[in-house]
Amino acid sequence: MNAPMITLTRRLRSTPFTSRIESFGVKTYTVYNHMLLPTQFIGVEDDYWHLRRSVQVWDVSCERQVELVGPDAARLAQLLTVRNLSSFAVGRCAYAPVVDHDGHLINDPVLSRLADDRFWLSVSDSDVVLWAGALAHGLGLDVKVFEPDVWPLAVQGPLAEDVAAAVFGETVREIRFFRFAPLAFEGHELLVARTGWSAQGGFEIYVDDAELGGALYDALMKAGEQHDIRPGCPNLIERIEAGLMTYGSDVTRDDTALEAGLGRYCALDAPIDAIGIEALRRQASTGLTRQVAGLLIEGDPVPANRNPWPVTAGGEMVGSVTSAVWSPRLGANVALGMIAIGHTPPGSNLVVQAPDGERRAVVSEVPFPGASQR
Amino acid sequence: MNAPMITLTRRLRSTPFTSRIESFGVKTYTVYNHMLLPTQFIGVEDDYWHLRRSVQVWDVSCERQVELVGPDAARLAQLLTVRNLSSFAVGRCAYAPVVDHDGHLINDPVLSRLADDRFWLSVSDSDVVLWAGALAHGLGLDVKVFEPDVWPLAVQGPLAEDVAAAVFGETVREIRFFRFAPLAFEGHELLVARTGWSAQGGFEIYVDDAELGGALYDALMKAGEQHDIRPGCPNLIERIEAGLMTYGSDVTRDDTALEAGLGRYCALDAPIDAIGIEALRRQASTGLTRQVAGLLIEGDPVPANRNPWPVTAGGEMVGSVTSAVWSPRLGANVALGMIAIGHTPPGSNLVVQAPDGERRAVVSEVPFPGASQR
Repeated sequence: MNAPMITLTRRLRSTPFTSRIESFGVKTYTVYNHMLLPTQFIGVEDDYWHLRRSVQVWDVSCERQVELVGPDAARLAQLLTVRNLSSFAVGRCAYAPVVDHDGHLINDPVLSRLADDRFWLSVSDSDVVLWAGALAHGLGLDVKVFEPDVWPLAVQGPLAEDVAAAVFGETVREIRFFRFAPLAFEGHELLVARTGWSAQGGFEIYVDDAELGGALYDALMKAGEQHDIRPGCPNLIERIEAGLMTYGSDVTRDDTALEAGLGRYCALDAPIDAIGIEALRRQASTGLTRQVAGLLIEGDPVPANRNPWPVTAGGEMVGSVTSAVWSPRLGANVALGMIAIGHTPPGSNLVVQAPDGERRAVVSEVPFPGASQR
Repeated sequence: MNAPMITLTRRLRSTPFTSRIESFGVKTYTVYNHMLLPTQFIGVEDDYWHLRRSVQVWDVSCERQVELVGPDAARLAQLLTVRNLSSFAVGRCAYAPVVDHDGHLINDPVLSRLADDRFWLSVSDSDVVLWAGALAHGLGLDVKVFEPDVWPLAVQGPLAEDVAAAVFGETVREIRFFRFAPLAFEGHELLVARTGWSAQGGFEIYVDDAELGGALYDALMKAGEQHDIRPGCPNLIERIEAGLMTYGSDVTRDDTALEAGLGRYCALDAPIDAIGIEALRRQASTGLTRQVAGLLIEGDPVPANRNPWPVTAGGEMVGSVTSAVWSPRLGANVALGMIAIGHTPPGSNLVVQAPDGERRAVVSEVPFPGASQR
């Protein structure tokens, strides 16, 4: 069939940047946190090469913030994530898995500490505001939980720092990886973090004023003119090569944080009071049965991957491919999947049941070779 | 701009019926509860007239079920909704607003009681499973909360009963409005409820087996051949005429259940233990400042309504239009909006700032005249 169109209504929220990206000619959208997220401008391959060589401005407003503020904010933050926050200082960001009491993944946000008693969770695609709000209510915590009007704008690509410096000043170069600083734009302080959903480097700017956001968008595009800057978006090829999982596609509520390969972010040994940490400790001690893995799939470019594709080894089902795309740089199909332990070591031979037939595949290290140029 | 296309990935979940509706030629999708929901087959107007005269099968799998089961299920159900459940018997369905402790709307599900200790919330577009799960955890309740694999299929339209009777037997005619019964299809019991998101009458069938669901879809289509049955979906014109609000479009977390016009479903006087009921009682006693209202907007067909349109009266802002569409039957534009009290009585004159200019409007009773033919 032809690709169906999307019906645009208020429920699929527009952003302060929507009119700009539509005038630039966004081709396709997805919906993420009840909000529009572009997925393609010129085309996935063209956008990919451009992202790797230049710089793009991304409307990632759909990375909604869940704010925790008040006397019990720090306690709630630690309850919400299995990451150890005991030395998590103001000005830092942390990839902080949120799981239920069985250890199953509810979200994989980036957590930022804005003040001793104030946090933002920059969430992937689930309503963490409901989970956090109900916990606070049920446990009688003294903390306010809400989604502030904040629309992140990302500047990504190898030339992102030059563009950010032209707009925010040279001090932006001093922001370290997964740190943020308040920087002025037109007299208004905005949080600028060295984070982003690519391996090409760059920043995310937390825009808390819609009108100013438009001006910032234009200023970034103008500052990047000399670098052939373009509007962009998280890129399917780049993110798979970088091993960046998508919550909802590669991992879901059916998977634990350990199965999602997030063990290094889980405080399995530290004495923290976090929902689900005990379940993860039990799973770690009994052993995993499956885990996310990277795959190189042989043959011509694979078709679009809408649903998980079965994966077999020696005729036995051993998992599924959840995201797959042709990498024009590697001349092969790169993929992520959930694979039975025993078949996850790099080099393992597998067979993928793609919609157009069986293909041989081999487990690969992630990130895939050359994903990051840094 | 041209309407953008939608990128289809696992995160925007397909349903057991997706391959069928795509082979029938679905034109547009929206995303609802992280799942694909068709919005148009032949066209909104053509689909509308067909729905009013015949019968359609709707893939409303996106009406996800949140199951509560266990000794504390009834207590949690009452905590979750401000509707009085004290006489809510097994076999009944109830439109049951879920609000936060400030009375703001989190969801407006249909609640069904499957057993004394087992409930389903058929939710609109927010992750109620997280809200309910965290409450249960925080309050230490003995209840399991999860989203079962259930994909509702609706049969809607004036001839729906004949089609349902051909598939499930004559007993389906005895199911009363907002009641359900377990009925057999190919030896498997399915819950069949006389509910649905139209004013044309019909049923929703809770399919809990994907393969059986495909067979049921085909059986319904075959049984309806003589009636010119077609695949369909909730219809923009029909649902506005019927005054059916969409959570996320017409009302959001910014609005209370009373502002959403749901006062008759709120137990303002009964002694129930429900989150948010006290806040609603306070608001009821101090008085509302705004409420959802129906509007007839003059002039030619309005453009697509992507964002709220400002509404004024005597030059003053008094609200916004949140959904609007041309009704070919009424020869006028029908709309829903959030309007300041004082301007909500039917007959009130307003001015709508549509994207193509100012238009006069008048507040109308909802449902609009002739919405239902029953």
